[in-house]
Amino acid sequence: MELYDQKFDFRDERNLSLVMDFYELTMSQCYFNSKTKDKIVTFDLFYRKNPDQGGYAVFAGLEEVIGYIQKLHFTKEDISYLRSLKRFSEAFLQYLSEFRFTGDIYAVKEGTPVFPNEPLIRVKAKLIDAQLIETALLLCVNHQTMIATKARRIVRAAGGRAIMEFGARRAHNFDAANFGARAAYIGGVAGTATTYAGQKFKMPVLGTMAHSFVQSFDSEYEAFLTYAQSYPESCTVLLDTYDTLHSGLPNAIKVAKQYLEPNGYRLAGVRIDSGDIAYLSKKIRKALDGAGMQDCSIVVSNSLDEYLITSLISQGAQINSMGVGENLVCSKSTPVFGGVYKLSSVFEGEKNIPKIKVSENVEKVTNPGYKDLYRIYDKESGMALGDLMTLHGEKIDIDQDLTIYHQMNSWKNKTILGGTYVIEDLLQPIFINGKLVYDAPSLEEIREHSKEAFTHIWDEIQRFEYPQTYYVDLSKNLLDLKLSMLEEVKHVK
Amino acid sequence: MELYDQKFDFRDERNLSLVMDFYELTMSQCYFNSKTKDKIVTFDLFYRKNPDQGGYAVFAGLEEVIGYIQKLHFTKEDISYLRSLKRFSEAFLQYLSEFRFTGDIYAVKEGTPVFPNEPLIRVKAKLIDAQLIETALLLCVNHQTMIATKARRIVRAAGGRAIMEFGARRAHNFDAANFGARAAYIGGVAGTATTYAGQKFKMPVLGTMAHSFVQSFDSEYEAFLTYAQSYPESCTVLLDTYDTLHSGLPNAIKVAKQYLEPNGYRLAGVRIDSGDIAYLSKKIRKALDGAGMQDCSIVVSNSLDEYLITSLISQGAQINSMGVGENLVCSKSTPVFGGVYKLSSVFEGEKNIPKIKVSENVEKVTNPGYKDLYRIYDKESGMALGDLMTLHGEKIDIDQDLTIYHQMNSWKNKTILGGTYVIEDLLQPIFINGKLVYDAPSLEEIREHSKEAFTHIWDEIQRFEYPQTYYVDLSKNLLDLKLSMLEEVKHVK
Repeated sequence: MELYDQKFDFRDERNLSLVMDFYELTMSQCYFNSKTKDKIVTFDLFYRKNPDQGGYAVFAGLEEVIGYIQKLHFTKEDISYLRSLKRFSEAFLQYLSEFRFTGDIYAVKEGTPVFPNEPLIRVKAKLIDAQLIETALLLCVNHQTMIATKARRIVRAAGGRAIMEFGARRAHNFDAANFGARAAYIGGVAGTATTYAGQKFKMPVLGTMAHSFVQSFDSEYEAFLTYAQSYPESCTVLLDTYDTLHSGLPNAIKVAKQYLEPNGYRLAGVRIDSGDIAYLSKKIRKALDGAGMQDCSIVVSNSLDEYLITSLISQGAQINSMGVGENLVCSKSTPVFGGVYKLSSVFEGEKNIPKIKVSENVEKVTNPGYKDLYRIYDKESGMALGDLMTLHGEKIDIDQDLTIYHQMNSWKNKTILGGTYVIEDLLQPIFINGKLVYDAPSLEEIREHSKEAFTHIWDEIQRFEYPQTYYVDLSKNLLDLKLSMLEEVKHVK
Repeated sequence: MELYDQKFDFRDERNLSLVMDFYELTMSQCYFNSKTKDKIVTFDLFYRKNPDQGGYAVFAGLEEVIGYIQKLHFTKEDISYLRSLKRFSEAFLQYLSEFRFTGDIYAVKEGTPVFPNEPLIRVKAKLIDAQLIETALLLCVNHQTMIATKARRIVRAAGGRAIMEFGARRAHNFDAANFGARAAYIGGVAGTATTYAGQKFKMPVLGTMAHSFVQSFDSEYEAFLTYAQSYPESCTVLLDTYDTLHSGLPNAIKVAKQYLEPNGYRLAGVRIDSGDIAYLSKKIRKALDGAGMQDCSIVVSNSLDEYLITSLISQGAQINSMGVGENLVCSKSTPVFGGVYKLSSVFEGEKNIPKIKVSENVEKVTNPGYKDLYRIYDKESGMALGDLMTLHGEKIDIDQDLTIYHQMNSWKNKTILGGTYVIEDLLQPIFINGKLVYDAPSLEEIREHSKEAFTHIWDEIQRFEYPQTYYVDLSKNLLDLKLSMLEEVKHVK
């Protein structure tokens, strides 16, 4: 059996099919037993709150989702493991052993700026198919979207200075190091220190040296010299093993003057990993410039995040590039991305019955129905005016006025004049009848797409402090449906 | 080539060798070029601060480390990838293509309570060997130790009620879901929802049902009945899809009375996933008891962590077991475990030269030298009095008085009378000359060891609020060495 579509680049050596919540399997057996398994349903994957009180998220993880679904199957070992749990009938196990995903999946392109409550992935499939992919969809999207978003925030703060992803040692295990590096690249970092990610995802790998390297030699100068001899063209030395200004810096200049420059090379950079970066970097810049080393970069690291970077730059710190570790790869300030996967409708034959999940908490009420998602752009400026959810198949005539409605309150609405806007259908076909139809872009293309897409998002949405809320609105039909369903489920207590 | 020792249970399908910071490779080439690669060095892996302002951590991740090191090798594909980066010489690539780890590794047993600044893993190896394993050692230990510690805190708060690990969908990718479940099991959870972890690590898998399951049927009662028909012996239903007290609860009782009990079964449990758990659980307990269903468990979930669980229990919430998601598997309140890996000594022939990493920050000064680590127990009570680091090979005669010293201040010391204490050598041999010598315990054994080991740790160390600081002290020889080295490196500025 060919597990992956040939045109699809991503491969995982593992069979990860069983990385699913056990209830996906027990519920599936119920569907199987009750003959509801082939009922066609729709699910939306969406999230409710932007990370870090920000104004957006950067959608990522789709390629990994595609890989999971393409490979999703239950091996003999999987089946005998499930049999050993004594919860499943032979008929169901037989069914599982032949299972392959057969549904339709539409999704937003990776790298796209996305916003709360809109479907990032829309699944239309047999109930059992839709259920079995839930855990992996959420896991891949939650992780990579979180890291891509964090990376974009950090890259934005750096104002054009290169950010290097340095966090593998603090990542939540191997996948988090590798896919975290990938997601960070989508978010705009210049490269990663994780060699495997470089190999697997064809992204740049970078690195300098460790304190232990310096310590393993008899002197700091000997360490720098040895490094310079091996890498004369790209020598960046670490200054703070003993004393940044009184030992590291003079030794760096010495190695430039006594070894590199006489041999026709220049010292590429110096790195500081502790101490008062603002103060030290200015002192170092001055000393380097004084030694005629204006082209020597200052690389800094040490618990950087978007706020510290903003502060350092505002203090006039002299920084050319930055390495960011745990704050990026663990998204330390916001280590959970809360994507959810909710049933939106059920088909009874041709009839589509919308479903809603009510909650006492207004923010947790879902948008019901099988839906489409559009981004609306101002024709003249090219800037995004907002996103619009409609019922599936609603037509938008861009020559006509378009009124978009707040997700809960019909008096909050806005009309955009016909002829002044264009629309983009955000949900792209990925799988149709279980067959991959998506021509997956390369990681470079995804990164470029993301960069470009953000040029259409107002700075007011992208700022860190009290960002403006981006409009994610409903069509009149969808709002009416939602309000009428909420009316229906109201209880008289 | 046989990659894994036969007696070793853990296998990873992937070749993860290149999950290393790129600088491990560039530094290694320097060692190779400068003929220092075979210099024997010692490194300690330790951490500086307990998670969550707590009093301890639970060491975990060793088995994964063993798997990485056993398999560590560079394939033809790895070598040609590295060649493509144009940073490495053919001689070095040739060396790498034959590389296997040949050093000694000692480590604390998984599940052991551990404390800041003590070596959890001690490596004695060629400089190049010690360097190449750095990233993976830190990554595995940092992740699993963080989760095992968090799990233990949550399990402790639950006071005997079962905790189920439910977090895969929010984990930082697949490995974090799987190894997170494993680490949580070491920390004491009863099982996981992640099926793959159950299969791979032979741990219990558990699950109930999702809101979408209930919604996919025409009525809540039909959903419950269908589930009961499939799982009459282990039926736990989810109450809060529509209205916990006015719909879910009566339907649960109805399915018990109309279907399960007439057929000789009992309703195993009900689950609540939203709302005021303290209030709802009491109401539900009363109603269930009133219906003669005293044996029906109440399972709760929804953003639980050790603090919320403590609060619920103190409010008299009626809870039999709990599902914990993102707060456990992402260790949300403390999503980074800061293990570090520091050079402690270098051998020049037979002579061992201790190394120290100084820092303006006193807590960041390392303990120098090739060291041993002992736990000291009171002979009568069996309780741990503290841990002691010595220089390697120092003998402790338990019939003699033992004076242990604060890590920085010689006036802070404590003498334990000879004959009143026993000692345990915490660092166990794992690899000797690159050969695995450790008989790795099963996951169940690790979990039992952890549980037992914590019975020797005073409650005052384990409490959440202002825990007592556990002693991690130095021998006189080690403290003298450290202070003299600090004196030596002092700069006259």
